[in-house]
Amino acid sequence: MAENYSFKYFTVKFPTDHQYVAHVEINRPERLNAFIEVMWENMAKIFNKLSSDPHVRAVVLSGAGAKAFTTGLDVKAASEGLLSSDDTKTDPARKAVAFRRHISAFQDCITAVERCEKPVVVALHGFSLGLGIDLSTATDVRLCARDTRFGVKEVDIGLAADIGTLSRLPKVVGNYGWVKEVALTAREFGAEEALRVGFVNAVYDTREATIVAALKLASLMASKSPVAVQGTKEILNYSRDHSVQDGLRYTSVWNSAALQTQDVSAALLSGLQKRTPTFEKL
Amino acid sequence: MAENYSFKYFTVKFPTDHQYVAHVEINRPERLNAFIEVMWENMAKIFNKLSSDPHVRAVVLSGAGAKAFTTGLDVKAASEGLLSSDDTKTDPARKAVAFRRHISAFQDCITAVERCEKPVVVALHGFSLGLGIDLSTATDVRLCARDTRFGVKEVDIGLAADIGTLSRLPKVVGNYGWVKEVALTAREFGAEEALRVGFVNAVYDTREATIVAALKLASLMASKSPVAVQGTKEILNYSRDHSVQDGLRYTSVWNSAALQTQDVSAALLSGLQKRTPTFEKL
Amino acid sequence: MAENYSFKYFTVKFPTDHQYVAHVEINRPERLNAFIEVMWENMAKIFNKLSSDPHVRAVVLSGAGAKAFTTGLDVKAASEGLLSSDDTKTDPARKAVAFRRHISAFQDCITAVERCEKPVVVALHGFSLGLGIDLSTATDVRLCARDTRFGVKEVDIGLAADIGTLSRLPKVVGNYGWVKEVALTAREFGAEEALRVGFVNAVYDTREATIVAALKLASLMASKSPVAVQGTKEILNYSRDHSVQDGLRYTSVWNSAALQTQDVSAALLSGLQKRTPTFEKL
Amino acid sequence: MAENYSFKYFTVKFPTDHQYVAHVEINRPERLNAFIEVMWENMAKIFNKLSSDPHVRAVVLSGAGAKAFTTGLDVKAASEGLLSSDDTKTDPARKAVAFRRHISAFQDCITAVERCEKPVVVALHGFSLGLGIDLSTATDVRLCARDTRFGVKEVDIGLAADIGTLSRLPKVVGNYGWVKEVALTAREFGAEEALRVGFVNAVYDTREATIVAALKLASLMASKSPVAVQGTKEILNYSRDHSVQDGLRYTSVWNSAALQTQDVSAALLSGLQKRTPTFEKL
Amino acid sequence: MAENYSFKYFTVKFPTDHQYVAHVEINRPERLNAFIEVMWENMAKIFNKLSSDPHVRAVVLSGAGAKAFTTGLDVKAASEGLLSSDDTKTDPARKAVAFRRHISAFQDCITAVERCEKPVVVALHGFSLGLGIDLSTATDVRLCARDTRFGVKEVDIGLAADIGTLSRLPKVVGNYGWVKEVALTAREFGAEEALRVGFVNAVYDTREATIVAALKLASLMASKSPVAVQGTKEILNYSRDHSVQDGLRYTSVWNSAALQTQDVSAALLSGLQKRTPTFEKL
Amino acid sequence: MAENYSFKYFTVKFPTDHQYVAHVEINRPERLNAFIEVMWENMAKIFNKLSSDPHVRAVVLSGAGAKAFTTGLDVKAASEGLLSSDDTKTDPARKAVAFRRHISAFQDCITAVERCEKPVVVALHGFSLGLGIDLSTATDVRLCARDTRFGVKEVDIGLAADIGTLSRLPKVVGNYGWVKEVALTAREFGAEEALRVGFVNAVYDTREATIVAALKLASLMASKSPVAVQGTKEILNYSRDHSVQDGLRYTSVWNSAALQTQDVSAALLSGLQKRTPTFEKL
Repeated sequence: MAENYSFKYFTVKFPTDHQYVAHVEINRPERLNAFIEVMWENMAKIFNKLSSDPHVRAVVLSGAGAKAFTTGLDVKAASEGLLSSDDTKTDPARKAVAFRRHISAFQDCITAVERCEKPVVVALHGFSLGLGIDLSTATDVRLCARDTRFGVKEVDIGLAADIGTLSRLPKVVGNYGWVKEVALTAREFGAEEALRVGFVNAVYDTREATIVAALKLASLMASKSPVAVQGTKEILNYSRDHSVQDGLRYTSVWNSAALQTQDVSAALLSGLQKRTPTFEKL
Repeated sequence: MAENYSFKYFTVKFPTDHQYVAHVEINRPERLNAFIEVMWENMAKIFNKLSSDPHVRAVVLSGAGAKAFTTGLDVKAASEGLLSSDDTKTDPARKAVAFRRHISAFQDCITAVERCEKPVVVALHGFSLGLGIDLSTATDVRLCARDTRFGVKEVDIGLAADIGTLSRLPKVVGNYGWVKEVALTAREFGAEEALRVGFVNAVYDTREATIVAALKLASLMASKSPVAVQGTKEILNYSRDHSVQDGLRYTSVWNSAALQTQDVSAALLSGLQKRTPTFEKL
Repeated sequence: MAENYSFKYFTVKFPTDHQYVAHVEINRPERLNAFIEVMWENMAKIFNKLSSDPHVRAVVLSGAGAKAFTTGLDVKAASEGLLSSDDTKTDPARKAVAFRRHISAFQDCITAVERCEKPVVVALHGFSLGLGIDLSTATDVRLCARDTRFGVKEVDIGLAADIGTLSRLPKVVGNYGWVKEVALTAREFGAEEALRVGFVNAVYDTREATIVAALKLASLMASKSPVAVQGTKEILNYSRDHSVQDGLRYTSVWNSAALQTQDVSAALLSGLQKRTPTFEKL
Repeated sequence: MAENYSFKYFTVKFPTDHQYVAHVEINRPERLNAFIEVMWENMAKIFNKLSSDPHVRAVVLSGAGAKAFTTGLDVKAASEGLLSSDDTKTDPARKAVAFRRHISAFQDCITAVERCEKPVVVALHGFSLGLGIDLSTATDVRLCARDTRFGVKEVDIGLAADIGTLSRLPKVVGNYGWVKEVALTAREFGAEEALRVGFVNAVYDTREATIVAALKLASLMASKSPVAVQGTKEILNYSRDHSVQDGLRYTSVWNSAALQTQDVSAALLSGLQKRTPTFEKL
Repeated sequence: MAENYSFKYFTVKFPTDHQYVAHVEINRPERLNAFIEVMWENMAKIFNKLSSDPHVRAVVLSGAGAKAFTTGLDVKAASEGLLSSDDTKTDPARKAVAFRRHISAFQDCITAVERCEKPVVVALHGFSLGLGIDLSTATDVRLCARDTRFGVKEVDIGLAADIGTLSRLPKVVGNYGWVKEVALTAREFGAEEALRVGFVNAVYDTREATIVAALKLASLMASKSPVAVQGTKEILNYSRDHSVQDGLRYTSVWNSAALQTQDVSAALLSGLQKRTPTFEKL
Repeated sequence: MAENYSFKYFTVKFPTDHQYVAHVEINRPERLNAFIEVMWENMAKIFNKLSSDPHVRAVVLSGAGAKAFTTGLDVKAASEGLLSSDDTKTDPARKAVAFRRHISAFQDCITAVERCEKPVVVALHGFSLGLGIDLSTATDVRLCARDTRFGVKEVDIGLAADIGTLSRLPKVVGNYGWVKEVALTAREFGAEEALRVGFVNAVYDTREATIVAALKLASLMASKSPVAVQGTKEILNYSRDHSVQDGLRYTSVWNSAALQTQDVSAALLSGLQKRTPTFEKL
């Protein structure tokens, strides 16, 4: 049995009734889970750890507190840090280097969620703005509560979103017209619209019901062969960025090792015997 | 008039009331049209033949028997062949080579459907699982009966789907969230959900009605200039795997020959004369 | 205040009640706004001009006359020009060169709409066929009136669409099954279907209501920081044709300059003060 | 017979003893052919014109005056224009937009040489620095005089070369180690080194001998089927930026029209008859 | 011991003193090994067979007769077939389809050499023109005799080379300037020039010496672990068409199976024991 | 003045007579600088640190001891670790996951050298085998001593090279024929051959002379504007993996910030005044 642990502003729990599932919670509810630098660094550390933790086969991500999954970047902190008019550098080219390094490091932290080898289901509720969108596009499946307020808010503070939304959101929902509208206007949208355009897979009545559904979905994934599940996530992510022909080639190489797994015979046998298969850790 | 013919487990008919349309039927209903090796090899042969057959301008694909389009790979046969623990090879690297060659050959057979120069409409019904999804993502338009049960079932037998679903399905429906859910859980879904996410273009009451609709749709395509129709299919497939700029360049080169066709003046003239144009074979 | 101007078959107006918005109207209603060569050349000139005009932050495109946004290419003119059986060239390879140069030049004119640095909202109504689809896929957001009749009509005149529809439409709506059906059959579709598949973002009762909505949406975009809005358009267009990893890298480089804008502090400050920010021209 | 013409700082001649060859000369020898804005604009106009001029089948580019092909950008002019510290714009993000538009427009002018459908042979001599490298990498074949002094000089004025050298030079010579050395140090190199690394194809004793050799080489290209020659240039340029598989596909589509040319039978016949074939204009 | 066999115009021998090496010879010396359709079809069959033949670990390709490796396409045969002015088709668009299908089928036959999983060393001599260049760019290593006459001759018969030279040659030698010169002029070049630009790896005095050297080189490759050698060929071919980042990812997946081979411990052990390792077939 | 420091098996020195240059030395001469895991981890740490160290503008990398730059992977250590037949995992698919994670982590450490924002010059001598090739292909410029022995040795131990050589070496030298020969045979090669194929830029008599030359070359790079130098490295690395068109676009965005540097006017002014410019740190 894995032990719960925590990083500053994050808790990681292993619910006893959801074998092989890790539940990561953003935990700064007093600030509506707004992100400061230590948070994205810690989040990357957590997902890197879960990625190779053999006790974990699927992950749920949610936000603590009734009001918000996250309101996004803590703008006040950022305006004193990242976005501040740093007077020590006066050369715009040198300021640009500092910004670029900072953005890249920040992007890498969010990408850690995408790179986590285990599937990640996010349970959204309340305010899910700005960085909340960046973050949820890096997960695999999005569920939300009926009260969720989404918004690609960056243009409202004079920015083009730069931590992943503009690169990933159109590939998540597959439609550029809607993405352009919400990204160019910063217009908020609710759960029903998110469901209709395919940004979320399902809507639930409350935050609690959403988390329960996310845990159940993650459990279902965790009950399957981890070789099969992790291969499926990897190949789907690869296929997003490559041609069909490249995707087929990568799949054949990937599966040339994966098909040697004992999970196939375990799954086939338990299928015949109508019982639940068990799979070795991964 | 083209003559009907058959390959083992497949029939190819040329319905007299649907000029220029070929109707390919998977014909192993006693096993719910489950695929064994000879079947995908024969299917590739058929579609390669149709691709250059001047009597054919559109193709319908369906499955014989009331219960299933196909339940996918014949797992029993595969577990004695492809997926068997072949004891003659003990070196995992050499086993990997054997698997890779086998997967590539199998993928190529399914890709023959995509590469067929004529548009392919698939009429789905009943069980349409596993390989049934791989196969239908390689066609151009999917129609289905109300009773269709879809499922990306591979994780249930310990595999990441490797014959095309993971590479093509997201590009067919354009939404990664839904694809990840159904591929990572092997959850089945029905006709209405398939319609909602855009996996199928329309739902009909019965298998028979679906086939009738598919033949009608194929006939409509077959009534147009084959130069225009085949060019449209080719350029759309090209554009899926390339940037818009590359797509435009390829289109301009393709059409530099295609626009010299006499079909343009034939079509324009018959449009003015309000009669159906006839086009030379292709 | 910018002055209205016109090019042959186009008017460009700057509505006084929509600051920073340009309204481009296709103006050949007596021919249902069908396009002849001078029109696409003029359209490119207009959008190139708007792209760097500091008085403009968003653009609306619509068609004059009650009946049509545009019926597409003026087939009669084309059959005497572009598509004519030019007897002076008898060598098919040389004819091909002439066609290719012509198509490329034509494509570039439509691409000028996509390349315009300011977001473009198109208000569609009535007949919006053929080139009308090519053109609207090059804009950012599509709105339409309830009476709009859409159609990828090219196969009906013996052509594969070659001015952008086949390259851009699937990436706009994100679904290949529907695109293949409408492009391979030339079947017309209406406003509700366009909304359901995500080709348009919203449907309005009349042409007039659609234009009002488009102006309002453009105004909303024009009220935001132009640095943020133009960056968002650019990065979204870049991301369509590149991998997520490439998109993130490009974003970080783009924003390394853009984040140095004074618009960020202007936006943050006006947010705190609950007033509308003003931004320097761009 | 084509008539000679000139644009400001450029002459275009049609040497009577080199049928179908155009000779473009940079003509600002009093400033060592250093480039100011009107020059790259004019150069683009000339190459666009030559691209579709049926009297032209190959182009030679050289520089007037004994001392220099070109010393590159006219830094004095640039420091008052492009590179000046423009005091009217104080926002670094807005300055960045101005720079980006300017660089793009400048790059497009150089790319006009690459996009010219006829092969371009450049005859280099004397100082061939900075922009001289950008420019010559956009041609097809480079010849030089023994006295040529090459240099990727941009880092010496605080810039990364931005008009094409960094994108094209490594693909011209195929070796990154040497390119990095000369680009990161601004070290000059001579004709022998340029020959050894494959930047130039041959070295001649004088400027005059180089131009004669270039005209002879261009004449040889101009004596071949223009369908074959222009197709070869296009496919080679395409292949540089695409995979082999994509290159093969593009070639097959390109040649599906080009092989219908009467030039093939003309060439075959004249081959049998041991006489020089003549080809229709293109 | 593998048995020698032959296909029309080809022999395949297994030299007893070169274990695991197959020697393929083009055998139509009375026509200077010029290619007719049955030859490229047979060549593809041979290389597909060798690709999975466990007795073969490396392949040598050469041409029979003293005068030529191959003079390329049999132009006389082609002018009655492929390149003939087929009077049964009058529509240029339909002729284009026929040409495209023919070119693609032909390209695929040459690509069979590249796709052969075992390394291929070609021994060139005498005339090695046109298709001889296409063919040798699809092999892995090129050796030649001092008397070899190379030429990309296609422009001389009114064609852009379309069976692979324009896509592969620049990536083989890595230099576009030289490739453009020889492809745009059809100028022949000899062994020394081929060596200097890196088209061949070494030059030998005679045809016989070249074949001996090729067999020796192939034997050396065949003496290594076939898992390592075939992986190296595959990854190098993959890397040619992909970014470094993609290449690294593909390598890590490929080697995740390949590193499980017993060849590693066999190689390490025999290294310590200073004896030649033996490896299981592949 | 930066202080020297060391990491296990590495020293980092800041030579007083080479301003802004860091000299990294691999320091395990008793084992011929063979790499064990801690070494590549430390190397990554060092290059990540140098990448953003404002005191550093160029880096030299060399190996301690007279005999070897590095003999590559410490095979003995690897055979007990990475390559060992780990008995705790029996499922080949799970072993594959372990290998893949390990290879990726190892690749990332080598890629840290490529990603270092400052140019890296490597001084090679003695044995420079296996991993020594992987490592030096990740640097920008390679210099070597006359006694250097190079070898892509991986096939000799049953492996396809997997830490970067197969992805980077062909792009460094630009020629696939030579790379295939040395990679498929593990044949060693010397300094002269390395110079001829362009793997190294220059050859020096001794290890010491090579290091002196490397420091001098690095100093020259360090004397230029760091904005210009670092931009040049970045854009050249980007261009390697992208089309020319993409490279030009990226360059224009990159330089839109970089051209705002005060280094341009500093460089121009000092050029006029014939003195050495000084540049602000970066």
